[in-house]
Amino acid sequence: MLKNQLLIAALLMGTAASTFAQEKMKPEDTEVWEPVPHVVATPLHQAPSDAIVLFDGKDLSAWESQRNPGKPAEWTVAGGTFTVNKKAGNIITKQKFSSYQLHLEYYIPADIEGEGQGRGNSGLFVAAIGTGDEGYELQILDSYENKTYVNGQLGSVYKQRIPLANPARKPGEWQTYDVIWTAPTFKQDGSLESPARVTSIINGVLVQNNVELTGGTKYIGKPEYKAHGPSPIMLQAHGDPSQPISFKNIWVRPL
Amino acid sequence: MLKNQLLIAALLMGTAASTFAQEKMKPEDTEVWEPVPHVVATPLHQAPSDAIVLFDGKDLSAWESQRNPGKPAEWTVAGGTFTVNKKAGNIITKQKFSSYQLHLEYYIPADIEGEGQGRGNSGLFVAAIGTGDEGYELQILDSYENKTYVNGQLGSVYKQRIPLANPARKPGEWQTYDVIWTAPTFKQDGSLESPARVTSIINGVLVQNNVELTGGTKYIGKPEYKAHGPSPIMLQAHGDPSQPISFKNIWVRPL
Amino acid sequence: MLKNQLLIAALLMGTAASTFAQEKMKPEDTEVWEPVPHVVATPLHQAPSDAIVLFDGKDLSAWESQRNPGKPAEWTVAGGTFTVNKKAGNIITKQKFSSYQLHLEYYIPADIEGEGQGRGNSGLFVAAIGTGDEGYELQILDSYENKTYVNGQLGSVYKQRIPLANPARKPGEWQTYDVIWTAPTFKQDGSLESPARVTSIINGVLVQNNVELTGGTKYIGKPEYKAHGPSPIMLQAHGDPSQPISFKNIWVRPL
Amino acid sequence: MLKNQLLIAALLMGTAASTFAQEKMKPEDTEVWEPVPHVVATPLHQAPSDAIVLFDGKDLSAWESQRNPGKPAEWTVAGGTFTVNKKAGNIITKQKFSSYQLHLEYYIPADIEGEGQGRGNSGLFVAAIGTGDEGYELQILDSYENKTYVNGQLGSVYKQRIPLANPARKPGEWQTYDVIWTAPTFKQDGSLESPARVTSIINGVLVQNNVELTGGTKYIGKPEYKAHGPSPIMLQAHGDPSQPISFKNIWVRPL
Repeated sequence: MLKNQLLIAALLMGTAASTFAQEKMKPEDTEVWEPVPHVVATPLHQAPSDAIVLFDGKDLSAWESQRNPGKPAEWTVAGGTFTVNKKAGNIITKQKFSSYQLHLEYYIPADIEGEGQGRGNSGLFVAAIGTGDEGYELQILDSYENKTYVNGQLGSVYKQRIPLANPARKPGEWQTYDVIWTAPTFKQDGSLESPARVTSIINGVLVQNNVELTGGTKYIGKPEYKAHGPSPIMLQAHGDPSQPISFKNIWVRPL
Repeated sequence: MLKNQLLIAALLMGTAASTFAQEKMKPEDTEVWEPVPHVVATPLHQAPSDAIVLFDGKDLSAWESQRNPGKPAEWTVAGGTFTVNKKAGNIITKQKFSSYQLHLEYYIPADIEGEGQGRGNSGLFVAAIGTGDEGYELQILDSYENKTYVNGQLGSVYKQRIPLANPARKPGEWQTYDVIWTAPTFKQDGSLESPARVTSIINGVLVQNNVELTGGTKYIGKPEYKAHGPSPIMLQAHGDPSQPISFKNIWVRPL
Repeated sequence: MLKNQLLIAALLMGTAASTFAQEKMKPEDTEVWEPVPHVVATPLHQAPSDAIVLFDGKDLSAWESQRNPGKPAEWTVAGGTFTVNKKAGNIITKQKFSSYQLHLEYYIPADIEGEGQGRGNSGLFVAAIGTGDEGYELQILDSYENKTYVNGQLGSVYKQRIPLANPARKPGEWQTYDVIWTAPTFKQDGSLESPARVTSIINGVLVQNNVELTGGTKYIGKPEYKAHGPSPIMLQAHGDPSQPISFKNIWVRPL
Repeated sequence: MLKNQLLIAALLMGTAASTFAQEKMKPEDTEVWEPVPHVVATPLHQAPSDAIVLFDGKDLSAWESQRNPGKPAEWTVAGGTFTVNKKAGNIITKQKFSSYQLHLEYYIPADIEGEGQGRGNSGLFVAAIGTGDEGYELQILDSYENKTYVNGQLGSVYKQRIPLANPARKPGEWQTYDVIWTAPTFKQDGSLESPARVTSIINGVLVQNNVELTGGTKYIGKPEYKAHGPSPIMLQAHGDPSQPISFKNIWVRPL
């Protein structure tokens, strides 16, 4: 038959042909042998072996002041944890990141006071792109029996994405925040090429499931994208200094 | 100006107008107050309060035999764990699920023998859609210093997606498997509407990042979609009976 | 003064002299520099580095059948735990011990049935000195809301010492048993030289505080000492086979 | 035989007679049914339900300054832990105790400096009986690869009892200290009636096994007893302020 005739015949044979083809395949035909995924050691209660440890209880040497670039991150280290020092402002990682998997643990003191956004407020900026509270903020807040707008409660992408659930533990207990961050990409002209996406899990509960972001976080107005490259990760000094939030066990695995 | 003229002017003003508009917005304008995410209690080392517990150490009452529908899942329960009984075949959940978040823990015995696919092999079928090893299989295998085809090693979507890393622990240690499963949807005529997606994390390490599946798992041939609705979750009785794999602490949260 | 006079004067001066003497001492005078205690590594959730591991999840190679000396301990190993097999009878360690520190974890199944001594009964014989249930038995029993004679409940030295508290967890949760065992010593003629003593802590709660034992455990009659040397440790196969008790993470440090 | 003859015969028969007597006993004869030990709940990672919690992460309200009785214990609370503040001096519990079981966790920072007694030095005074460093001190020190006199290293009863082992973890890891304290008793005239005894376990390793104390701790001179009643527990502010030791999870169960 001519080439066209062959094509038509194939189309007519439809699924039967396809199944026939598969039956003639051998198991080995669908085995792939490379590339071989790299080995990661995963000791209990420790960071995976390929992670960049951002805080292991010792010091804040992986961080610096946001407002005084190059100066130390003057939050308080004690007992294997560190605690927000409001006077010192936000802190950012010295290293810049694109997409990654991140783990952190946070602690809101048992005697926390205030309400709404004024109660145990900090934030994880998965990418800090300016000099203030700019970037993409995953909200950290005491949302245990504390009402606020739902796109501003624990686990929200601040003022952009409502969390799927409210897994807040009572203040006075350590809590975990796991994030899979897909950084946005931009074209040469600064316009958006692919949007940012985020999956986040708090205390083991999925709160954001690969949601697409519509831009950087804004306190006033709608999210907007502004082109940027690899960026530091930032922790926000938002809390009342008399009710400080603590952190420990922070690591990140670039993807 | 007339209404149309206003519209044209606004369009001409472009981004400037948009920025102007945002500056006139108030913080409250971007607050959303409902729907309120449901509260989930997250006690340490326990299933979230809204999870369906598939095994809590007591019995296999949430499961049944795959080959003998309606009959008990005759795997061996002891010490808060249960262990594959090859003679009893695969086991499936009595309940059917669409999309969900799942957690399980598995254990490959320290004296495991064999190599390649013959070493510590089981599988988590996130949806079992037939009567045998059909559905979508997330591979469970001893991949600790054990070479096999990379789309068949621990963390692969079997013969479909290579894992991002190899986080296998040494046999004789418990390991964790966390899954976010987005079930595929099908049109009335049985054709695919939206593909399945899966995110999976083993021992805390991301191995599949919201990957799209091209169909159900096939041992021979390429993955293919076959229409189905909510489906049971299945654990595979693949291992050698003298080297049985154990499981514990399994829960699922429908999304 | 003569030597005797000096002595008398010293005695008369009493405490004053003693205090005076101490004030003339230097801090260094009461420093002791040897022997240097041996270093023990204490990794989290693992046995201390100088411990003899009696079960680490792999196999029962440290144990043997009591009734068939030299034959394997045929209890069931799965999922990093092992479970009483009533048919196989008691199991004893191959190695013999005198005084030691011991740790074990035990699990009574959630669906345990029966009452009193018939509910979740096993026992830790810190020294098994005969061929049956002879030796010194620290009671293991489900004492969670289960009444029995108090010198036979969880934590008792069976029929000899009532525990200080009842720290039983609900069946279906792992429990810990920590023991400091001071073996009795005997004279050449077989008579008692120094009695046995035991301190035990269950689930972190002190239940026996260095109590002196009056002899080996007897089901009928009063405890009696019978001379013995280093002895195996024994776990009792007492439970109903349909409600088996499991164990894991057992280690001992000879003192 | 007559009754007297029977008695004489029994005496002559010695052990045989005793055994005979026991064989005639019934199992019930050696059951004791009261007093019933009180029930203690033992949730994982929490203090037993009958414990007095001295620090649960919230505040130091159970403590006060030693040097300024009645004034707050001004050590630094953050992240669920508290940290020595050398300027504020020793802290003591408001409540007084006799014999008890105690648990605490301590942390020596990873960047600890100095050597010998100048490296990570604090102390647990199981009973503080004066206004300074008086009482009975269980030594807390960084003894990880840090040589000092052995009756002054971690786990010693300071200048009185060498520990059985050195289970020090590397600085930068939390460590546990479990103590069973039997307070001394004194007669009306102030002389010693029964000496103090202590059992202590560090990181799960026995370091003092019910040792008898010869008196209160002295930096210079030999231990001496001075009569006292129930006493506060004290933590020592000995460490260099730039390398502070932290504590958490402290509870005590009066015995």
